[in-house]
Amino acid sequence: MTYDLVVIGAGPGGFDAAVAGAGYGLKVALVEKDVLGGTCVNRGCIPTKLWLGATSAIEELHNQSKMKVASGEVNVDFTALQARVQKHLVGTRKAMGMQLKKLGVDLLEGIGRLAGKGKISVENEDGTQEVDYKNLVVATGSKPIFFPGLEPDGECVLDSDMFLSMDSMPSSLIVVGAGFIGLEMAQAAHRFGAKVTVVDAMDRVAPLEDPEVSKALRSVFKRWKWDIKLEERVSGVRTVDGKAVLTLESGEQIEADKALVAVGRGPVTQGIGLEEAGIEMQFNQIQVDENLMAAKNIYAIGDANGQMQLAHAAAHQAHYVASRIAGKTDAPYESGPIPSVLYGAPEVMRVGLMQNEAFLTDMDCEVSKVQLAANPMAQAHAATQGFVKVVWSGGKVVGVTAVGHEVSRLATTSTMIVQQGWTAEDIYKTIFPHPSLDESLLMALKADRQKVEG
Amino acid sequence: MTYDLVVIGAGPGGFDAAVAGAGYGLKVALVEKDVLGGTCVNRGCIPTKLWLGATSAIEELHNQSKMKVASGEVNVDFTALQARVQKHLVGTRKAMGMQLKKLGVDLLEGIGRLAGKGKISVENEDGTQEVDYKNLVVATGSKPIFFPGLEPDGECVLDSDMFLSMDSMPSSLIVVGAGFIGLEMAQAAHRFGAKVTVVDAMDRVAPLEDPEVSKALRSVFKRWKWDIKLEERVSGVRTVDGKAVLTLESGEQIEADKALVAVGRGPVTQGIGLEEAGIEMQFNQIQVDENLMAAKNIYAIGDANGQMQLAHAAAHQAHYVASRIAGKTDAPYESGPIPSVLYGAPEVMRVGLMQNEAFLTDMDCEVSKVQLAANPMAQAHAATQGFVKVVWSGGKVVGVTAVGHEVSRLATTSTMIVQQGWTAEDIYKTIFPHPSLDESLLMALKADRQKVEG
Repeated sequence: MTYDLVVIGAGPGGFDAAVAGAGYGLKVALVEKDVLGGTCVNRGCIPTKLWLGATSAIEELHNQSKMKVASGEVNVDFTALQARVQKHLVGTRKAMGMQLKKLGVDLLEGIGRLAGKGKISVENEDGTQEVDYKNLVVATGSKPIFFPGLEPDGECVLDSDMFLSMDSMPSSLIVVGAGFIGLEMAQAAHRFGAKVTVVDAMDRVAPLEDPEVSKALRSVFKRWKWDIKLEERVSGVRTVDGKAVLTLESGEQIEADKALVAVGRGPVTQGIGLEEAGIEMQFNQIQVDENLMAAKNIYAIGDANGQMQLAHAAAHQAHYVASRIAGKTDAPYESGPIPSVLYGAPEVMRVGLMQNEAFLTDMDCEVSKVQLAANPMAQAHAATQGFVKVVWSGGKVVGVTAVGHEVSRLATTSTMIVQQGWTAEDIYKTIFPHPSLDESLLMALKADRQKVEG
Repeated sequence: MTYDLVVIGAGPGGFDAAVAGAGYGLKVALVEKDVLGGTCVNRGCIPTKLWLGATSAIEELHNQSKMKVASGEVNVDFTALQARVQKHLVGTRKAMGMQLKKLGVDLLEGIGRLAGKGKISVENEDGTQEVDYKNLVVATGSKPIFFPGLEPDGECVLDSDMFLSMDSMPSSLIVVGAGFIGLEMAQAAHRFGAKVTVVDAMDRVAPLEDPEVSKALRSVFKRWKWDIKLEERVSGVRTVDGKAVLTLESGEQIEADKALVAVGRGPVTQGIGLEEAGIEMQFNQIQVDENLMAAKNIYAIGDANGQMQLAHAAAHQAHYVASRIAGKTDAPYESGPIPSVLYGAPEVMRVGLMQNEAFLTDMDCEVSKVQLAANPMAQAHAATQGFVKVVWSGGKVVGVTAVGHEVSRLATTSTMIVQQGWTAEDIYKTIFPHPSLDESLLMALKADRQKVEG
């Protein structure tokens, strides 16, 4: 049996590649060593969103209480929440399995490895089988990485996988790494009442964002009494007498019930025969050409190629490679602008080029900006901190970022606006609903532009 | 002193026309008989959103409680909320006033009336002044209308203005009219614990929406134990012994603490000299040509021309007439698709042509649809009832509607998609963030299409 398409990895990239391939009439096999859904469904985006969703009443109540409009108490039962998360994940995986079945995709459970030209092996506890392919898509994803001294021990020092599988929420938490993963999980812990300490070697939280976004986030976290330690290097963290004890290079020690190490994720690309097949790697990232090809008839998508660690980027690449394999396109891959979102309260969204990046590239650049306080929906939710910022170059919108109440709402619209390169003229063509948080984007588009000084 | 532009009415249409005109360098006067902001700011969209925002924790808690994930109690202090609404409105009006001042727009307080060619009079308690204009924009808005027997008495029978100014929330409420205004206010009352009865002469709630949306809404309201009386005509409602007593044509009587009559709104266009100036009216709506002109140099925008009773439609018309008067365009007015949103939980959004409307126009039409239950963000908020439906014609998207958790998020993106007439190809060009409620729209766009049968 020779498959038109074999996909290794059933995360957002691999699953979507298999489904899209089958949709084009290809005979497809999908190889997965664990469960359907990959990191995003099982150990990442989805469980975090269920945590944040379940606790959102706590935040809403908190904000209205500050205005003396509401009072009361919301208690979220962490055990019940974890049971609900598991139930949801089981349901999601079941639905995914049924979709594969309906489309005639063969699910091969086991570890997939390249096994010579046009062949892979799939190893599980029952043995090893070989499978022939015409086209292979490697979508093996990523896993948490650690610096020496920061390895999780599964006791009090946890990676994000372990953190999401806890039985109870700690009453104090140290988060090492102030990126999106650490910050979303810290927000959830905060809502459960945990005292939060965040440590990062960089000089700001969310260091991939616009610096003003980082500043706004930090100011919210400070108001929540988080201890934010920036430009601090960690020499080690370990479990001592049932507590997580973190030692900074300065010598200072910090103690908490748990420590979450979220300093980054790296591709899962070792030991599956990629190098042996002549595929080039850099920092474990599979190097691909403009068609997302790593070698003849072998594609790599998603976190495995290291281009963009986002589920929706992987899914978009998946659709491209499937249509390419099915002969529907021979154009090179173009992602267009890719939005990113930090959920919680506040939220962050970003798409396209940021002010600091434009400056670095020597682009002629202007920004226009409004505060969320001017928006009635932010006012209605008593969550008025934050702003929307539009980056312009050559008279066109090249980037949008925002921080504050529900700014994730702006992400898809902003993506379309950046993709279409709106000019001042375009702003008046589309009617935004009133009132809506979306109008803060409209106001930012209309606001006076300031030239970015070098 | 002759103004380039005089605007009567400082609601979303008139205010924006004045601001846009001044932005174009015109000398502008804005005439307002009451306060800045009109119905939307003072007696409509904004106070309702503050009510819904302040009570959203109640809904969130309710949903998570049903899943046995959360428990507790949220109490919203209606008196404190009403004080906050007033404070917000004062702040909004003050900001609007400052904006006018900064732009050099003269605010003339009083009743504006047409007073012969190129002249209006402005009457207030200090007397009457005459003002000359080169161009006039009539943006006098709308007010609640009533059928005989349904007139509010200000005691227990209220219109929406009175309802929003109440000192306390009634413990039982009859809403006459199941349109957006009545349904948003009923939702707020429901969250405060009021027993709600809704009466409408039509055979469904939200009768301007897709019939499936009406059905989904009704099913949610029924679960909340609302008494929904459809195809019922009201012969009268009045205050009897401190209660609102409503009599149906069937003879049945219903009693509640208050009755809200929200059967529609009609233009405020009488007694200000419009007919005398030769302006044509139909049902009090000012008739305008394709340039929104009612007579030479006289424009009518917003609720006053009756084309679309939505603040953002008025604001869009305002921008057009200002740019026309400033000589920036001589093209006829084109609104593009206009989104509408019902806020609350569930929400409703709609833009473009609906399935039932397409059928009526004999258009060749298909629909694609997904349930919200498949969306992880709806799952995270334990609010999975609802759907997203896309209407296609000639291979292009011509309409989108949705009902359920936070579907207002889809409104702006959907407006752009309908405006741009997306085909199947376009769906894969833009990356939607994952996870997001927006993906339910993406899934609906990708879903199998069903031909609409006649």
